[in-house]
Amino acid sequence: MLLKENIPLKYVFGKIKYEVLLVAVYTLFIVLLHSQFKLTNMEIPLAVPMIMGTVISLLLAFRSNQAYDRWWEARTIWGAIVNDSRSLSRQILSFIDDQEDTVLFREKLVRRQIAWCYALSQSLRGLDAKEGLERLLSKRELAFVSKYTSVPMALLELHARDLNYALKQEWLNEYQQVELDRTLSRLCDAMGKCERIKNTVFPATYSLYIHFSMNFFILLLPFALIQNFGVLAIPMVVAISASFLLIEKMAIHLQDPFDNKPTDTPMTAISRNIERDLKQMLNDHQIPESEAVYKYYVM
Amino acid sequence: MLLKENIPLKYVFGKIKYEVLLVAVYTLFIVLLHSQFKLTNMEIPLAVPMIMGTVISLLLAFRSNQAYDRWWEARTIWGAIVNDSRSLSRQILSFIDDQEDTVLFREKLVRRQIAWCYALSQSLRGLDAKEGLERLLSKRELAFVSKYTSVPMALLELHARDLNYALKQEWLNEYQQVELDRTLSRLCDAMGKCERIKNTVFPATYSLYIHFSMNFFILLLPFALIQNFGVLAIPMVVAISASFLLIEKMAIHLQDPFDNKPTDTPMTAISRNIERDLKQMLNDHQIPESEAVYKYYVM
Amino acid sequence: MLLKENIPLKYVFGKIKYEVLLVAVYTLFIVLLHSQFKLTNMEIPLAVPMIMGTVISLLLAFRSNQAYDRWWEARTIWGAIVNDSRSLSRQILSFIDDQEDTVLFREKLVRRQIAWCYALSQSLRGLDAKEGLERLLSKRELAFVSKYTSVPMALLELHARDLNYALKQEWLNEYQQVELDRTLSRLCDAMGKCERIKNTVFPATYSLYIHFSMNFFILLLPFALIQNFGVLAIPMVVAISASFLLIEKMAIHLQDPFDNKPTDTPMTAISRNIERDLKQMLNDHQIPESEAVYKYYVM
Amino acid sequence: MLLKENIPLKYVFGKIKYEVLLVAVYTLFIVLLHSQFKLTNMEIPLAVPMIMGTVISLLLAFRSNQAYDRWWEARTIWGAIVNDSRSLSRQILSFIDDQEDTVLFREKLVRRQIAWCYALSQSLRGLDAKEGLERLLSKRELAFVSKYTSVPMALLELHARDLNYALKQEWLNEYQQVELDRTLSRLCDAMGKCERIKNTVFPATYSLYIHFSMNFFILLLPFALIQNFGVLAIPMVVAISASFLLIEKMAIHLQDPFDNKPTDTPMTAISRNIERDLKQMLNDHQIPESEAVYKYYVM
Amino acid sequence: MLLKENIPLKYVFGKIKYEVLLVAVYTLFIVLLHSQFKLTNMEIPLAVPMIMGTVISLLLAFRSNQAYDRWWEARTIWGAIVNDSRSLSRQILSFIDDQEDTVLFREKLVRRQIAWCYALSQSLRGLDAKEGLERLLSKRELAFVSKYTSVPMALLELHARDLNYALKQEWLNEYQQVELDRTLSRLCDAMGKCERIKNTVFPATYSLYIHFSMNFFILLLPFALIQNFGVLAIPMVVAISASFLLIEKMAIHLQDPFDNKPTDTPMTAISRNIERDLKQMLNDHQIPESEAVYKYYVM
Repeated sequence: MLLKENIPLKYVFGKIKYEVLLVAVYTLFIVLLHSQFKLTNMEIPLAVPMIMGTVISLLLAFRSNQAYDRWWEARTIWGAIVNDSRSLSRQILSFIDDQEDTVLFREKLVRRQIAWCYALSQSLRGLDAKEGLERLLSKRELAFVSKYTSVPMALLELHARDLNYALKQEWLNEYQQVELDRTLSRLCDAMGKCERIKNTVFPATYSLYIHFSMNFFILLLPFALIQNFGVLAIPMVVAISASFLLIEKMAIHLQDPFDNKPTDTPMTAISRNIERDLKQMLNDHQIPESEAVYKYYVM
Repeated sequence: MLLKENIPLKYVFGKIKYEVLLVAVYTLFIVLLHSQFKLTNMEIPLAVPMIMGTVISLLLAFRSNQAYDRWWEARTIWGAIVNDSRSLSRQILSFIDDQEDTVLFREKLVRRQIAWCYALSQSLRGLDAKEGLERLLSKRELAFVSKYTSVPMALLELHARDLNYALKQEWLNEYQQVELDRTLSRLCDAMGKCERIKNTVFPATYSLYIHFSMNFFILLLPFALIQNFGVLAIPMVVAISASFLLIEKMAIHLQDPFDNKPTDTPMTAISRNIERDLKQMLNDHQIPESEAVYKYYVM
Repeated sequence: MLLKENIPLKYVFGKIKYEVLLVAVYTLFIVLLHSQFKLTNMEIPLAVPMIMGTVISLLLAFRSNQAYDRWWEARTIWGAIVNDSRSLSRQILSFIDDQEDTVLFREKLVRRQIAWCYALSQSLRGLDAKEGLERLLSKRELAFVSKYTSVPMALLELHARDLNYALKQEWLNEYQQVELDRTLSRLCDAMGKCERIKNTVFPATYSLYIHFSMNFFILLLPFALIQNFGVLAIPMVVAISASFLLIEKMAIHLQDPFDNKPTDTPMTAISRNIERDLKQMLNDHQIPESEAVYKYYVM
Repeated sequence: MLLKENIPLKYVFGKIKYEVLLVAVYTLFIVLLHSQFKLTNMEIPLAVPMIMGTVISLLLAFRSNQAYDRWWEARTIWGAIVNDSRSLSRQILSFIDDQEDTVLFREKLVRRQIAWCYALSQSLRGLDAKEGLERLLSKRELAFVSKYTSVPMALLELHARDLNYALKQEWLNEYQQVELDRTLSRLCDAMGKCERIKNTVFPATYSLYIHFSMNFFILLLPFALIQNFGVLAIPMVVAISASFLLIEKMAIHLQDPFDNKPTDTPMTAISRNIERDLKQMLNDHQIPESEAVYKYYVM
Repeated sequence: MLLKENIPLKYVFGKIKYEVLLVAVYTLFIVLLHSQFKLTNMEIPLAVPMIMGTVISLLLAFRSNQAYDRWWEARTIWGAIVNDSRSLSRQILSFIDDQEDTVLFREKLVRRQIAWCYALSQSLRGLDAKEGLERLLSKRELAFVSKYTSVPMALLELHARDLNYALKQEWLNEYQQVELDRTLSRLCDAMGKCERIKNTVFPATYSLYIHFSMNFFILLLPFALIQNFGVLAIPMVVAISASFLLIEKMAIHLQDPFDNKPTDTPMTAISRNIERDLKQMLNDHQIPESEAVYKYYVM
């Protein structure tokens, strides 16, 4: 229940205030027309919007489901990124012995994995993927990465090259190298899945159709209510249409979970947690201070 | 049917008693207003709440589904933890021969796996993850663990280090070490999935909208029923609104399966079962007495 | 259509005969009250049960879905047990050469896998898991197993120990041992999944709420129908309530697929098929006569 | 839209013509009774079938979903069989070098895999699994197979034995043998999944209940429509009941995808495609002429 | 919201303009008949189309769901193809050292993987799979491929042969070869899954039935609306039927995601992205200019 207290009504209805105002004015206009000119043949039976209401409700439920699934899949993929980042570090630190000549190598890979998370998060938001990575990557790594369209993919390639090097140095045995490569493949899958959600828009014709039908339904509503309610039809129409408008807004909101809005998947916060966990494995307890990211996480 | 007898009506309706009381008083007030002042233009046709009722029903069904899925996924993850804990122990005890120098090593790993389950369960509930682990972990292990934010992650790292040690000692061959590491990765996945469910709240705007729409629907109901029923509208409104309020409560209840309530995922009971099973593998039949945990498990 | 002829109407309606009788008597009582005392203000409009009917229908559909999913998951898990039992035997018989010193070893493992299926089936039904296993296990195996709470888990441990022994004897190479251990992990997973379904009841508050709402809906029905139908309201109420009662009964029936009823998952029949298939691999065509288990399998 | 032109209306309505005729005669009888004897108390309000209509619609949707899922799962499993058959052949032909002593061995395995597909397809349809396999299997293989209840399982066992032989001959290395065995395990899983769908009937009590409720609903319909329509009630009742009857028929049709009907899963066509693909890998381009199997594939 | 502005209303309604026109003319005809000849017994109560409307809405929702699932599965498979193409290249370039004698070999495999994507994309659209591959494949490869029905399958076979060659040359160790073969198996799975979606039509009897019921429902609508609206029934009928017609059209549109329409799965654009990514790994930054493929991607 905590959540409810934190989010004011204003926030929820702020998203649809212009639409609701428009609906109110429109209904007022219909009501005036009806009462002034006694146009009783403007009245339509409630059964007409009811038939449409059922099919629109089902379609909004369908759309909410798909939008929620996209949002939840995005969250699940980032959950998998957390798991695989931890597993990769655990494997690197336990497979490769802690010797004088490997200590820097091990640290380099773990820090690069942290950089990978930030870079993926930035590039999904359409921002510069290399921003802020200087503290985690060497100059050589940054130079290598800058030749690629996809920075995270380039970092995975560097991982793979280093693992081959470690195999050559006999820091890893043959099974361990292949096992670590599998973890890279899972990270590569996670990256590709995020891109798929980002690049595949919800079928636009569906959203358009639902949008038009819903608005048509709202336009019909006053005609069905003026007979019984007169001027009281206005709050009725506003109430019913607000419900439908809000659900559509929520679906639009959830369906694009990587869109650089304050309420999308909290990729920066997750990346910071990964940084904290992986640095602790390196016995480095100097973690960047966690900004109050969750404060705005109301979605 | 056993379950029904165990749970009194009081328990079910206790959750919504204040809301129901409020609804009753509110309806009484409307009824009095209506009958005293003969305000017949307060009456609205039943079709208005019916249109809203359909869309709210669909949204509650949608929400119940998502809440149930979260609850069931939580349960499935803990089922996987049971399976992987058993598999890890089986692998340790069958891959590593039972020799004089390995007997303590094998036991240490199995006992640490038991500790891992309790620690995960505690940390998901927001309690001190190290509480009560002294009987399962050595002082050195406890000291190591205390430097980490996530105790279960630290225990997995200790597992991984020990497996590498066992490889060095040739207690495990190279394939067996990698195979055991895979079991660790699965446990790491399970831990991350629990954290994902714990940290990802159900989209607050959805819940808020459903909450407001439902309450608005309940506020409208008396106006639709006073015409036909008069004072009998009160039980009608109470009955219908109780249904909707209860479903919402159930969804709120199920959607956070790790919230330290008497009815959440029975992680302590499951951990105790894991302890019993794993200790039997060590031929240690001194199992902590099972508190009657399931007694309160009505959810 | 064969199925329909086999199951008499009596079977279907037998499950709800007492409830239906009660509903009939109750409706008769309301009808008499109404016609004797002319209590016309007892009448309520049909729209009231219609609003409730929609939400209850959605909840029953939700519940039917979850119950069906539990039932189908149970069936899928036992399908996986069939597959993994066959794969385990195929692997044992093809990886380990058919030599004089291995012939008994190979047979022992295959026979123990058959025993595992029967033991799991018995223990899920809450019966003695060791019953009838003497014909498949040796005395030593039975003695080992009796120290464990979970007999199937003990049998998997014996499997794992024997595989390690086979590795030592060089009957298996190192990859083959790990591959066979993976099959054991899958069997361990299947066992844990069955236990999860068995131990996790459908959220009792949900079932209770649906139960109460539905009964309340049935109690209201006569009041909505007496006006139009008089005494004919009785068959109407019986017909509508029978539908709802039956769906609830079916859901209760399906949701516990391991409950030792004649209609649950046919685990004994499946185990017998596994026995037949695995013994044929051993060239042992003496299969226990298949009881007509499917005869009662109407669920 | 091509599909619609190919399937005449006759085909669709042919499936329910007797039921529809019966409904028409029954409604005519009710109409005559009503108009001849002026039995106005036979009339019932439309709201009664509407309440039932909602719950029956939801149940039919639920049933359609489950039936569709079974049908789609069957198709997915056969898709996996295509993939694993191709992978198995690719692995055999690339892992085992093309030498004088292996050429027949490689060919034997690939041809046996083709036989496996046909045998599985036949046995799922309840036909003789060995029919027509002489052109693909040797006499020794046919003799071996005839001792087994399940021919496809016997063929997998032969595969496994041959792989072990190839390991002994050092045609395969140890990892390759285990990798090929995994492909066998996946084929074994696919076989078991098909058998599960074949052997697990849709819960008969559910289908029965839906069947009875739907028929009861149809029996009530005329009484609700005679008041407004008189003799025109007949086409109304026929139209509404035809919808419900057709959906039920479709669900019954889809739910058993291995039932030797012209419209079930096109297993023979798929097997023929596998034969074509696998033989091309062997450079054998003499493929059995593809019967126009898809012509009848309207389901 | 960008999307909405890009797609004119014309586009959305263009798909159903003929049907809508027909409906309008038909309704006009009914209205004229009704008003000219005062045929009041043509009127039917709105409850009749409402009962049908509920069941048709549920079926359309069911169909939309299945169509959306097919479309989304197609997109997911192509996402997996992106991931596995990247992983394959990463594995080839990191497993095989960059030496004088391997540089051409490595490049050949990566370029062939690019060709595989284009070939699969072409063959799924029913076009010539070899078109445009000359710039990526050698003449010998093209000749080999031309003997196969399925060009992508032939390319996978070439991959597998080359991996075996690399194993012989000791460019790959035994585990690496098996690991790369697994990536090939995943690509083979993706190819088979695409073919399954392509070849398995949505059950035609279902679509037909939904089509007929919906049209029958539209034919009934005017009779239910003429009483209240007279000539205003025309826009009502058009509005309601347009909703239903559009949803059906969208479902038909989404259900065949590989049908060579401007709005299907953007396989060419995806293949081009794969080409860009894989060539960057080879340090070849000469990427074919990206046609503005997404411009038409409104679906």
